[in-house]
Amino acid sequence: MACHERGPEVVMEHDLEQTMAVLERTPGTLDALVRGLPDLWTMRNEGGESFTVFDVIGHLIHGERADWTTRARLILRHGESKTFDRFDRFAHKRESEGKTLGELLNEFAGLRKQNLEEVRSWKLGPGELAKRGRHPGFGPVTLSQLLATWAAHDLTHLHQISRIMAHQYRELVGPWRVYLGVLHCKGHGAQAAEQ
Amino acid sequence: MACHERGPEVVMEHDLEQTMAVLERTPGTLDALVRGLPDLWTMRNEGGESFTVFDVIGHLIHGERADWTTRARLILRHGESKTFDRFDRFAHKRESEGKTLGELLNEFAGLRKQNLEEVRSWKLGPGELAKRGRHPGFGPVTLSQLLATWAAHDLTHLHQISRIMAHQYRELVGPWRVYLGVLHCKGHGAQAAEQ
Repeated sequence: MACHERGPEVVMEHDLEQTMAVLERTPGTLDALVRGLPDLWTMRNEGGESFTVFDVIGHLIHGERADWTTRARLILRHGESKTFDRFDRFAHKRESEGKTLGELLNEFAGLRKQNLEEVRSWKLGPGELAKRGRHPGFGPVTLSQLLATWAAHDLTHLHQISRIMAHQYRELVGPWRVYLGVLHCKGHGAQAAEQ
Repeated sequence: MACHERGPEVVMEHDLEQTMAVLERTPGTLDALVRGLPDLWTMRNEGGESFTVFDVIGHLIHGERADWTTRARLILRHGESKTFDRFDRFAHKRESEGKTLGELLNEFAGLRKQNLEEVRSWKLGPGELAKRGRHPGFGPVTLSQLLATWAAHDLTHLHQISRIMAHQYRELVGPWRVYLGVLHCKGHGAQAAEQ
């Protein structure tokens, strides 16, 4: 991980292999974590309109189909001249209907593999990573930021899944509740689903 | 998941198979998530004295050796007459020294397998699960609460690992930072390591 000085602060350079290393591990991680789990863990939410684990996997699938590589291609082809479409945070509700969790996990793994192959085929260098596109809310963003966010977005949903699951045991743990950090993590569930 | 009325609230009964389903998946989940990752992800922390991913796996190993089944045996044999030893939250620093992350993952998987086999061999029923032991801080706790906490403790550390990893990309994601919930999760890292 190379660093270079830019004014008073040290800025970390984006090494795409570090990002790919996370992205390629996520399907296997989710598979190991939730495939075959009893519904208690995967079909319950944190109350209200919050996501279940099943919803989160559906949301990740929609991202593979409609967000990450779609936006990356837009940056590479059109730069800032075309604004990204807004991401539909509820599309997965329709798209996941009637499917099993196992089917969603398979679908996610297949799409992710295909998308990472596509990204590798672009043979991105520093010039491409610095290219800018236009986000409907933020304005200019770089391809580097988009790809780093793809990996961090996986991590934010892994974080969310562990929290949704732990929530189901909030009473059963009795007095240990005070020591379990995951049970005190609140207020960013909705944010985490945004893009 | 059976529920029964107790006064005005519905109390969820502890189904041990639900707990075992999480506990048996954790080694594979951590393996899929972090084995072979570049050091950026596994050897950096969130600043100060906070844990790296490597530290977290070491901490989980120490729990397998010194905490969960040790305390469970104490409850089954001695009930409330013997207080649990305090858990050493820094023992793993010594014990992990000189080991690779891959070695720690292997060690954790082996110990977890062995511990779950031991728990299954006890053939626990509702009578045993309701048995009480004595925690040095909380006082009386049940075997049921201890075992539920073991699973929730896995989830709290998965939550922590995803947060430690995401922290390394907090700058690279640029403006998306505001939408990534995991980057706004603060203040319970230290709590999460307690038991």
